Amino acid sequence: MPFIHLKDIAAKELLPGFKGKMVHTENMTLAYWEIKSGSILPPHSHFHEQVAAQVISGEFELTLQVETKLMKAGDLAVIPSNELHSGRAITDCQLLDVFSPVREDYKSKE
Amino acid sequence: MPFIHLKDIAAKELLPGFKGKMVHTENMTLAYWEIKSGSILPPHSHFHEQVAAQVISGEFELTLQVETKLMKAGDLAVIPSNELHSGRAITDCQLLDVFSPVREDYKSKE
Repeated sequence: MPFIHLKDIAAKELLPGFKGKMVHTENMTLAYWEIKSGSILPPHSHFHEQVAAQVISGEFELTLQVETKLMKAGDLAVIPSNELHSGRAITDCQLLDVFSPVREDYKSKE
Repeated sequence: MPFIHLKDIAAKELLPGFKGKMVHTENMTLAYWEIKSGSILPPHSHFHEQVAAQVISGEFELTLQVETKLMKAGDLAVIPSNELHSGRAITDCQLLDVFSPVREDYKSKE
């Protein structure tokens, strides 16, 4: 399945308000999110490195450790392995997260 | 530098017609491309796994081995390590490629 159309992937609500379409490869997981305004990403961490909150549309407030930023289109954040992070959708928004290695924990929820 | 704004990254023309902004992390490279209509990506391969040609805007024709597809917004392709691929910009377009591991060869050209 080398060629993929996002419209062919079913979205799953993995957290309240967070609907994601996942693409898993050998070394990476790409997560395309549609998030409802006001939805909360509770503080958490994981050993996977993450390039987070690449905002496609809307606004998302992201907190890394003690720093909080309002993320808009063209913004992204690099979250090292095991770093605590959390967030909140300020508006309805679309984000792309990229993880390495693969999020095996997501696979079991899809 | 956990928070990054794409507008703060200088674009470099790494191939004729291909201007890229690179974000390198521990395990991944993200390449945000602006490509001129008609520009050619010659056939090549690399050991890095690639999630390719995530089209943000415009149209890009991508060939993986013997299969050619016209890629538009919402399309992407998973290119395994060492697989031959090539392409051509049908219009001016914006693409995102994600590689793992890091493209150390790009770093030396930036």
